[in-house]
Amino acid sequence: MKYQLAIIGGGPAGYTAAEAAGKAGLSVVLFEKKSLGGVCLNEGCIPTKTLLYSAKVYDYARHASKYAVNVPEASFDLGKIIARKQKVVRKLVLGIKSKLTAHGVNIVTGEAVIADSHTVRCGEETYECENLMLCTGSETFIPPIPGLENVDYWTHRDALDNKEVPASLAIVGGGVIGMEFASFFCSLGVQVTVIEMMDEILGGMDKELSALLRADYAKRGIKFLLSTKVTGISKDEAGVTVSYEQADGAGSVQAAKVLMSVGRRPVTKGYGLENLGLEVTERRCIKVDEHMQSSVPGVYVCGDLNGVSLLAHTAVREAEVAVHHILGKEDAMSYRAIPGVVYTNPEIAGAGMTEEALKAAGMSYNIVKLPMAYSGRFVAENEGVNGVCKVLTAEDGTVLGAHLLGNPASELVVLAGMAIEDRRKLEDWKRYVFPHPTVGEIFREL
Amino acid sequence: MKYQLAIIGGGPAGYTAAEAAGKAGLSVVLFEKKSLGGVCLNEGCIPTKTLLYSAKVYDYARHASKYAVNVPEASFDLGKIIARKQKVVRKLVLGIKSKLTAHGVNIVTGEAVIADSHTVRCGEETYECENLMLCTGSETFIPPIPGLENVDYWTHRDALDNKEVPASLAIVGGGVIGMEFASFFCSLGVQVTVIEMMDEILGGMDKELSALLRADYAKRGIKFLLSTKVTGISKDEAGVTVSYEQADGAGSVQAAKVLMSVGRRPVTKGYGLENLGLEVTERRCIKVDEHMQSSVPGVYVCGDLNGVSLLAHTAVREAEVAVHHILGKEDAMSYRAIPGVVYTNPEIAGAGMTEEALKAAGMSYNIVKLPMAYSGRFVAENEGVNGVCKVLTAEDGTVLGAHLLGNPASELVVLAGMAIEDRRKLEDWKRYVFPHPTVGEIFREL
Repeated sequence: MKYQLAIIGGGPAGYTAAEAAGKAGLSVVLFEKKSLGGVCLNEGCIPTKTLLYSAKVYDYARHASKYAVNVPEASFDLGKIIARKQKVVRKLVLGIKSKLTAHGVNIVTGEAVIADSHTVRCGEETYECENLMLCTGSETFIPPIPGLENVDYWTHRDALDNKEVPASLAIVGGGVIGMEFASFFCSLGVQVTVIEMMDEILGGMDKELSALLRADYAKRGIKFLLSTKVTGISKDEAGVTVSYEQADGAGSVQAAKVLMSVGRRPVTKGYGLENLGLEVTERRCIKVDEHMQSSVPGVYVCGDLNGVSLLAHTAVREAEVAVHHILGKEDAMSYRAIPGVVYTNPEIAGAGMTEEALKAAGMSYNIVKLPMAYSGRFVAENEGVNGVCKVLTAEDGTVLGAHLLGNPASELVVLAGMAIEDRRKLEDWKRYVFPHPTVGEIFREL
Repeated sequence: MKYQLAIIGGGPAGYTAAEAAGKAGLSVVLFEKKSLGGVCLNEGCIPTKTLLYSAKVYDYARHASKYAVNVPEASFDLGKIIARKQKVVRKLVLGIKSKLTAHGVNIVTGEAVIADSHTVRCGEETYECENLMLCTGSETFIPPIPGLENVDYWTHRDALDNKEVPASLAIVGGGVIGMEFASFFCSLGVQVTVIEMMDEILGGMDKELSALLRADYAKRGIKFLLSTKVTGISKDEAGVTVSYEQADGAGSVQAAKVLMSVGRRPVTKGYGLENLGLEVTERRCIKVDEHMQSSVPGVYVCGDLNGVSLLAHTAVREAEVAVHHILGKEDAMSYRAIPGVVYTNPEIAGAGMTEEALKAAGMSYNIVKLPMAYSGRFVAENEGVNGVCKVLTAEDGTVLGAHLLGNPASELVVLAGMAIEDRRKLEDWKRYVFPHPTVGEIFREL
């Protein structure tokens, strides 16, 4: 049997493509070597949000008096938090499995190896396909830091399954992953130090809002070392010592544990990718067109593997676009309004361009900015918490970027993303009736 | 001095109009006899949400173990909850005042009386105006129930300022106001009975979702009496006795307190409205056109007074439309996608048409419905809670109505409202990248 579509990798790109193609009546085989859902569902987005929600409930309890609720005593059980996380993941993995099965997708568990663009081998079997979609995702990048190989360091995966609360934690890399874990362990009472090479945390996010968030966490006890290069990591009695260099000299941090969250990079080895001879870009990523098709017709590359955005929701949309192309349905990938969210508390979210990106592109822009306290609901539900809604517009009012600090930024940013994607103007939001009182009303107030 | 715009009533319609007109450079006088912000800010939307948030924090504490957080003991201080509410209201009232002042609005505190369409008197002063906007809002409707006059019953206003927790509470009227207070007092441990004349709570909302919410609250201890007509209320030793009739006989409920939340009606008396001789509709509401202009040119009627929607966010939009008309800017009021939200926990929200409305209009429709558990974030943050996303579409996929049960429905429903307002199709949501994991992604899953 020749499948109309073979997919390697069952993460957000892979399972979305499999479901969409199966639903459209294509014969689909999906190869996954570990667990359906990929990093996102098994050891990324969903597990972290489950842990962070427990931390939020713990925070609510500890700060309940702000809302005239008395909680004399609160504690947490990290083992149970982890167990609940496993349960949530299992439930969602099963959900994906049942959706795929319902749409007739053949799920093959095992390591697939590409022979050519129409042939995939897995175990003893050979699978033929008309179209091939590569969704192998990304993996943690561990930089070559002297001494690191002798240290029992954590990656995000270890941090998610660890059941003992360390006394202190050094986090190397203050990006999204680093900051979400910093937030989680800070809530649990761990002394956290975040070491970041750049001059601000959360690289791709709005710098002003990132700085506000950082100041807020600094007040809560997280120590930040910015513009700081880690030069060595070594074991000591209490755990680890992280040595670093800053402009004005060297120093070191001691901690019980160290979490490496410097970044991620596409998984390109171990499954015969080289047998396809795909063209690559200057940045050595696989070249794809607006339909996610590589230089070899019928071979599509979706999700982190293409190196464009490394976000689950980007992968989902890319997979849909690719399947549409296979089905001959008009569609094209747009990266104009990809939202980015950091699930700290408060959340920070953005879509479209940042000021930094606009400056780099030499584009002129206006800033329209309001404190979240313009929303009555925000005031009602965020005692002593500040937030900002910042929208960047072109001369004619077209929304170019939007950046939010304050809950529930994650759920609101899509409104900005839609406006940016459709090149709408700021005043367009005023045509709609936003329910009152909501935090989302802030967009109408701008 | 002749003002370009005189506004009677400083609630959402009035303050929005005053700000918009002042910002546009019009000379504006605003009359408010009590406090800026009207019922919504002083004794409605905002105070209830502040109270409900304290109740939510208390609920979180009591059910923290669902998320592996141990809270052996939690209590609340209703006096402090009320005090915090006052503080939130004060802050927001001051915010409105400073916005209006910044835009040059003359705020007059006092009871305005209309002499004619160009003349308003307040105290000793007479104010001339080119345009007149009436935003006097609505008041609690107290039905003529035998014995009620002898009982010390609550309206929403009393319930908001009461500092002692009653042992039990009978709520007459299971609409939005009734259910929000039912939710609040249920969280505080009060034995609540809701008595509703119709066969389901929350009249205008989707009936299926309302029934699910009711079943959920019934489990938490609220007693519901549907299709039940209150025939009398009397004082007794423990508080009050509410007598009622049902299809199969009569009965009574005893409670420490009774809250009357049957409905609200426009305030039409006491300010010389009759001197304008405005045309009324068949339902005896003031007739307005799509620019909110009454039968007398230059006289606009916005907010609850016109009797169309009785929601703060409708009032806000109406006020903007009216000001645009005065300014000669093209705009028109649309009621196609007014969202409705009930801030119970979980929230229920809807926009556009309900199944009941579609049936009544003889329109054919399709139902697209998913459990909220299709959203990974919902699963992560809602242990043991069910939710539903239900969208009603025309044959060609155009979204006609959307109804959500599950947090944060209030913040999400605007997405549906926008689609309905623009007559978009269901599949249109798939063009956008929704951040993952969010509850809002559910719209893409439909």
